[in-house]
Order: sequence, then structure tokens, then C-alpha cells
Amino acid sequence: MDFYKDKAVLVTGGCGFIGSNLAIRLVRAGARVTIVDSMFEDYGGNLHNIAPVADDVRLNISDVRDQVSLRHLVRGQEVIFNLAGQVSHIDSMLDPVTDLEINAKAQLGVLEACRHANPRARIVLTSTRQIYGRPRYLPVDENHPLDPVDINGINCIAGEWYHLLYHRVYGIPATVLRLTNTYGPRQLLRHNRQGFLGWFIRLVLENREIQIFGDGAQRRDMNHVDDVVDAILLAGQRDEAVGEVYNLAGDEPVSLKDLTERMIRIAGSGSYRLVPWPEEKKRIDIGDFYGNAAKIEAALGWKPRVGVDQGLAATFEYYRGCLGKYLD
Amino acid sequence: MDFYKDKAVLVTGGCGFIGSNLAIRLVRAGARVTIVDSMFEDYGGNLHNIAPVADDVRLNISDVRDQVSLRHLVRGQEVIFNLAGQVSHIDSMLDPVTDLEINAKAQLGVLEACRHANPRARIVLTSTRQIYGRPRYLPVDENHPLDPVDINGINCIAGEWYHLLYHRVYGIPATVLRLTNTYGPRQLLRHNRQGFLGWFIRLVLENREIQIFGDGAQRRDMNHVDDVVDAILLAGQRDEAVGEVYNLAGDEPVSLKDLTERMIRIAGSGSYRLVPWPEEKKRIDIGDFYGNAAKIEAALGWKPRVGVDQGLAATFEYYRGCLGKYLD
Repeated sequence: MDFYKDKAVLVTGGCGFIGSNLAIRLVRAGARVTIVDSMFEDYGGNLHNIAPVADDVRLNISDVRDQVSLRHLVRGQEVIFNLAGQVSHIDSMLDPVTDLEINAKAQLGVLEACRHANPRARIVLTSTRQIYGRPRYLPVDENHPLDPVDINGINCIAGEWYHLLYHRVYGIPATVLRLTNTYGPRQLLRHNRQGFLGWFIRLVLENREIQIFGDGAQRRDMNHVDDVVDAILLAGQRDEAVGEVYNLAGDEPVSLKDLTERMIRIAGSGSYRLVPWPEEKKRIDIGDFYGNAAKIEAALGWKPRVGVDQGLAATFEYYRGCLGKYLD
Repeated sequence: MDFYKDKAVLVTGGCGFIGSNLAIRLVRAGARVTIVDSMFEDYGGNLHNIAPVADDVRLNISDVRDQVSLRHLVRGQEVIFNLAGQVSHIDSMLDPVTDLEINAKAQLGVLEACRHANPRARIVLTSTRQIYGRPRYLPVDENHPLDPVDINGINCIAGEWYHLLYHRVYGIPATVLRLTNTYGPRQLLRHNRQGFLGWFIRLVLENREIQIFGDGAQRRDMNHVDDVVDAILLAGQRDEAVGEVYNLAGDEPVSLKDLTERMIRIAGSGSYRLVPWPEEKKRIDIGDFYGNAAKIEAALGWKPRVGVDQGLAATFEYYRGCLGKYLD
């Protein structure tokens, strides 16, 4: 972590789930952290997330779609963590143009700002395993065809490709990480449109009933946010990572039923019930999905360290102290 | 062609090269044609292109990025030919955000307009073989990996995928055609940023010297615009085409040197010279490229009918009468 000491770093989406965990780690490593966040309603930005470092970061409330302010903000930054995004598949179908603007146009704006104002800054983009669509084989590696099943996936691919192209054509040192389901402290719990994990955690904490569609046998992998932050920090400092795309993946695929039972046991609250698939959900379900992270392990030595049970226990512990901050 | 008699059809980009040739054919087939064109400087829109049918079409000057007017314009249309686009690779690198807005955001806007106001209209999108990037095998079929080498390619892929997704999710009957180099009457000749074909044609017509980089041995395929219009008209009427992507391809790959020699011979003017590759051009050259159109031939019975020599002769004949209209 010495790499980040005194480094000027920018975290877009820095008040969000992963961004705030990253910003806190960067402050602790001695970096000079600027956070850019639009505080977009419903996206995950939460000032409580950065409370532990509120006095140690420069907080800049602005929208990554605003190219004028971006061009100023990227100046002098040594590493740019490009995390701002619209991550709800559902919202991307309800408002596809906004999804395009935030996940594709704003990404292009960050790159254009860097090309003109700071072409040597390292850039790390967080993308999503969602772009692979329905898996054709398991575990899914980086060579798996991209076959997005929603607008969010299409726009995230464009966002990725802009980064790789700006690397190839302009030499901008960018790295893309494709995240799988991520959970942990500081995740949005207010609604269920950003994936099942945060929502299940909330229902368990509130001692409510989780409904699982079908038999709950479909398996998914997941990463604790601390492991994701490790990968992001490695990607921002290691030269081997420049121009590369890496999957993150959990080390243990878990069925939804098994995961839910573990949550309930660890939290000591909540319940679940198997219910028939709603037709419109069944149609878009992608079945089992888990990724192969061998490439990043070989290149950067990353692999997840936090087991599912341990990670869930720490997550429940975190929220027990401040659940209200995530329900306002 | 009886299919189009009395049909209400919309042609976006209808004053451009391919759009105007399509609009003229549609008028002759008895369709009720509305043209939407922004007349964007440098993109190819030219009122002279539609002079033969000026009294028979409804000409609506507007920008496909304007979602409000689009939603009105798509109402009542039975077939929408979605041809408006920014087609210069060079311009896409100089102004990537505009390229994104026209080739991706506006495409999404057309689809959203249809979803809300006219979900049963047939849609035909013209895309580009440029999205395949450097060919990994020849001839390139529709299963070839997509590996765009410029911003235009990335945005055209997003535009395609929005169409296929809106078909899968909302049942909107869309077809995508991936065009290769197209030439013929009504092509933009004013600058050389939309590909080599129009520019070579102009230099020959003006009895100027063509510079060919390297030995001119790299082979390309090409289609006369009449063949492309045939394919577009088939795609708009045949049920088998719904939800499909088809390559168009020339029936004869030609080396640039051979093509140039033929042009000079057929036109009876012009000259050429082999010059060394400029370093920055060499780096982005994709070498030989020609496509495989077996899929559309099997499904719709399309194949090119106009040979290169015959097509070039007709093209020179067209411009000889009105070259000034393409140089203003």
C-alpha cells in the first residue's frame, strides 16, 4: 500500500458502495483523495458512507456527465478510479437514455478529459459480469462472448471498449475490472433494483421474509467489498494491468437457497419461502453464473480472502449499528 | 416491390447517399415516403440527391437526436429505415461524443419512440462491417468476433445491440444489415473522411492523381448502392429477417491497385502513384477485408447483381452530369 502514499487520486462515485470503501482505504494508505459524486437519488451515494474520512477527503458534488467540470477535476490526479455508474438493470430498461449517458457517454467524457488534460493518469474502470449475458460455459472467463441481455450491459460494454481503445490509440493507461455480485458495508439497501444481495441483507436484518423464485438452486458467486477494493488498488498500481480486462469472481459459487439459509443462520433473523417463478422474471433469468478469476490471480496475485460466512457476519455487524442511515 | 405500394415509410438520413437512393426506389414502388434528415454539414445530406422525387416525398428537416420530434414522426409509419448516422471513422476519433450521440443515443431514441408510439413498425438499421475490426479469418461472416478499432465501431455496435434487444424484450421487429464499402450515385465527394471509395471516384473524375499506400495489394469488397437498396428493401418486408443480423458483401474482392486501375480505365481520366505508408496510417490499417454474405443469400435470396466495372461506369456517368452539386 506504500504506492498510494501521498498520491493524488480521484474516485468517481466515491460516496457510493464500493467507492466509499475504496476512498476509506486510500485515505488510510496516505493518499490525497478527491471524491466526485452526483448524489443521484437512488444510485447509492450516501454521505454516511464517507463519515469516517469526511475530514480527510475533498468532496466534490458533481455529475460525471458534466464534461466541463470533469476536465478541471482530472488535472493533477495520478490515479483515477472510475466507479460512477448506474448499476440497476431494471432502471436501465425503464430509462435507457439515462443509463447510456451515465455508463457510456460519461465514461467517454472522463477519457476525453484525460486525453486533453492529463493523459498519463492511471485509470481503473469497474464494469460488470452482466455483459456476458446467459453463460455458455462455467466458470465464465474473459474470453466468453459478450451477449448483454439488457441496456445496462450494452452501455457497460461501450464504456469498457472506450477505455481499451483510448489505451491502444492514445496510450492512456487504463484497466477494466468486471465485478460480480458484491456485498458488504455501505451498500444501498433502500430499494431492490440494484440486485438481490443488498435486498436480501436488508430483509434478514429487518426479520422479514425472503421470497426465492423456483427451487433456489441457481448458483451465483459473490465478493466481499474488501476483496473488490484490493483488486481495484492492485489494478491502479501494477504496470502489468495496463490495457487489460480482468474478471473478479467469488471463490465459492453458492445456490440462492443455500446463501439465504446461511444469512438467516448468521444474522439470527429473517425467514424465506420458495415461490413459483413470475413469468416475466423467468424469461430473463440467466440461470447459474459464476466467474473465473484465474487471469487476475496469475497477473496480479489477487484472489478473494473473505469467505462468505465471515463476510456476511461482518456485514450484518456493520449495519446493526446504523441501519437507519440506509433506509432514509 | 408490390409490398411497398401505399405503405407509409420513414427514411432517416434520407437526403444522404444510401437514404436518397432508397427513397427514390420507394417512391417508384408507390410508397408514401417521409424523409428525416438533419442536413448535418459534412455528413452527406444533399438536396440534389432527392431532386427526382422532391414533389413525391415529405421532407422533414430534423435531427434524430431530438426525441420529441421523433416520437411524432414515427407514428403511423409501417416501415422505418434507420439510416441516419455519422459514418466517418476519422470524425469519430476527433469528436467521439457527437459520434456516440448520433450512432448510439439517437438509435436508442428511435427505438424508444417506436416502443412508446409505434411498436409494430418494421425497422431496418444499416450498420457497418467496421465493427469486426482487423479480420481474424476471411471472408468475414456474422459470427466473427466484434473487435472495433475506433469509436465509430464501438457506437455502431451499441446501436445494433439496442435494436436486437428491443426485438427480444419488446418484440419490436428490427433487422440489422452490416454494410461493406458502398459506392454509386449520390455519394458524398466533398471530403475524404468517409472512406476511400467516394474520394477515389472524385479524383478520377477531376483527372487528379490517386495516392495508394504501400503496394496497393490489400483487398476489399464493395457494393453498388443499387444492390444495397435491394437488401434494405428485402429486410424491411420479409418476416424471416426479423431479429436477424446480415452481412452485405461484394461478390469480388478487389485489390486497391486493381480497383484504381479499373477506375482510371473506365473513366478515361485520372492517374495513380504508389507511395510509402505514413506511419500513423499503417498502424491502423486492417489489411485485407471482405465479407461473407451467405446468410442473407440463404435467407432472403439477396446477392449483388451489379459488377464492379458496370457499377463504376454507371457511377461516373451519373456524376458527369452534376459533379458541381457534390463539390459545393
